Amino acid sequence: MKIDGQWVQSIQENPDGSIKIIDQRSLPHQLKWVDLKTPANAEVAIKAMWCRGAPLLAMVGAYGLCFALEQAADDAHLQRQYDTLLATRPTAVNLRWALNQIRDAVKPQPTHQRAALARKIARRLCQEDVQTNKAIGLHGLQIFQDMAAQKKAGEPINVLTHCNAGWLATIDWGTALAPIYMAYDDGIPVHVWVDETRPRNQGAQLTAWELGQHGVPHTVIADNTGGHLMQHGMVDLCITGTDRVTASGDVCNKIGTYLKALAAKDNHVPFYVALPYTTIDWTIDDGVKDIPIEQRSEREVTHVQGGLENDLKESDVVAVRVMPKTSKAANYAFDVTPNRLVTGLITEQGICAASQEGLAGLYHPADTQS
Amino acid sequence: MKIDGQWVQSIQENPDGSIKIIDQRSLPHQLKWVDLKTPANAEVAIKAMWCRGAPLLAMVGAYGLCFALEQAADDAHLQRQYDTLLATRPTAVNLRWALNQIRDAVKPQPTHQRAALARKIARRLCQEDVQTNKAIGLHGLQIFQDMAAQKKAGEPINVLTHCNAGWLATIDWGTALAPIYMAYDDGIPVHVWVDETRPRNQGAQLTAWELGQHGVPHTVIADNTGGHLMQHGMVDLCITGTDRVTASGDVCNKIGTYLKALAAKDNHVPFYVALPYTTIDWTIDDGVKDIPIEQRSEREVTHVQGGLENDLKESDVVAVRVMPKTSKAANYAFDVTPNRLVTGLITEQGICAASQEGLAGLYHPADTQS
Repeated sequence: MKIDGQWVQSIQENPDGSIKIIDQRSLPHQLKWVDLKTPANAEVAIKAMWCRGAPLLAMVGAYGLCFALEQAADDAHLQRQYDTLLATRPTAVNLRWALNQIRDAVKPQPTHQRAALARKIARRLCQEDVQTNKAIGLHGLQIFQDMAAQKKAGEPINVLTHCNAGWLATIDWGTALAPIYMAYDDGIPVHVWVDETRPRNQGAQLTAWELGQHGVPHTVIADNTGGHLMQHGMVDLCITGTDRVTASGDVCNKIGTYLKALAAKDNHVPFYVALPYTTIDWTIDDGVKDIPIEQRSEREVTHVQGGLENDLKESDVVAVRVMPKTSKAANYAFDVTPNRLVTGLITEQGICAASQEGLAGLYHPADTQS
Repeated sequence: MKIDGQWVQSIQENPDGSIKIIDQRSLPHQLKWVDLKTPANAEVAIKAMWCRGAPLLAMVGAYGLCFALEQAADDAHLQRQYDTLLATRPTAVNLRWALNQIRDAVKPQPTHQRAALARKIARRLCQEDVQTNKAIGLHGLQIFQDMAAQKKAGEPINVLTHCNAGWLATIDWGTALAPIYMAYDDGIPVHVWVDETRPRNQGAQLTAWELGQHGVPHTVIADNTGGHLMQHGMVDLCITGTDRVTASGDVCNKIGTYLKALAAKDNHVPFYVALPYTTIDWTIDDGVKDIPIEQRSEREVTHVQGGLENDLKESDVVAVRVMPKTSKAANYAFDVTPNRLVTGLITEQGICAASQEGLAGLYHPADTQS
């Protein structure tokens, strides 16, 4: 990932063992790095969405458990901190997976060795995340290369994406955006339609910023717009990330993903979902029926955060109310896209159909189950 | 329509012949009535979206032509002002229709009689709008009564609507909201899911305010949410307005309508569109192919307007930037919902299928053509 032309990663270890992450709440207006030193810091960072994105928050959770074990490493403390960290984001299966990796590895060890082992695992998981996303990018690149071969020279491939599944959501590269960065770096002309992604505007605030830092041409649109673009041949493919994929290939992702998948189907536009294997939940099949959907604060709907532009205070980030004080709001954070609407899953193992059979071709559930 | 418990209409004539309308840009934060006295005032009111909604802006356009004829009534001036007013909103077929009504009626008359006749027609068109919307409401009420008969006592009918097609978009009652107001007044328990409707947030700012003024229970949601609600049986029917319906029943409406219609179809939720006959464009069939879609200012996407809440300046209305300064935005204002996704058209003549045959059962095109 690049910021101002420099390659960096989204979690950095400080010399004192604390970690540095971007407080994503003030992007794109301000770039603020913050230090996390305690499990409580990690909990707040996840709950208050300083960091978001299933892979990144899993790693922040993993470091949170490291910090906890550095405070006290007995079984009771381990389990209590595990439970608290897990409760910060019940929808994210990666978080559970990462916490399990650490808990299960340290538990057989004597308490004085647990903290060091946990940190070793957290570092390894971060490096695996980078490798995984690189592999997703390379598999997805193939789709772009095939499409570019069908286009006239110089004609861009138009990709639509929803929410942020870029490097800001991972340690590096991202999932949905990894193939886009690789296509761009490969010299393929790419243009990205960026859904602003209300209510939190992760598209407008994060994806647009990230693509801009990398130099990828992009245009931000209201979430309502994608259907019209697809009706008029202005989208060649959609790629999104996901918070959870069921064993049958149903995709739980940011609210609104389902609507874009319907439009893609109606207009014969390929709809891909990019994910690392940690996102697969082998324990459930029917996503619509079985995935509980988080409801988040009404305030994300009643208010919009942005930069206040005036002569005095150029970069003040404020929230403005966009609806009557006397009206209620509801904020469902995710929806489920049934597998019948998904053209393919782009994983670190390759691309497969969004189905039990497709996934079985790439994975042996027993190997990946936590 | 009610404001603070008082019945009023959205265009009021002042004693000096000017008209008073609500400057809808500052709702729901402030209620501001403004006077329009000249054709240029009317143009600005339409172009800058002080007023919006196909029927209302048609009437403001009609009064604009009255003001023009009060300045000068010769043929050249008439045609010039007609052209200028028509150019303010090319997508709105009602505007053309209203301007034609006046131009065609006054043209055979001597110039000194033209202004008075124009005003008489403008007043009549306003009163016809009220009667038309009442009739739409009464026909739509039948749908609610039928649904209520299937529900347990006290169980609300959940309606989803997009944008604002309420009384703020007309002279009174509204189109899509007329049946909802009538159902509510009839004692049927109703709850409305209000799409906030980015980029201008007409749902959050106008529909929520108007429903609140009338006392109708409602909840504002991000535009991304409707699909999830429909998957989970939380929407009994959708009703939207429209800016233009083709002779085959394709529906051009606020961007994003198409996505909700797709979700309704996928989940067997009835999707109705409410309209007066002035909205039908008998000259075209294929809406996706033949309706040019306006692109509006990028600023509606790059910025969000809202009320700034702080101790000092409770109700300041400001715009905040929600995306990077270096990113582009695109703002397509409407989309087209193919007739195959529309359960029925609710008109002042009754409810019909969204098809040539359906419309032919209610209308003789020759009678309604301008």
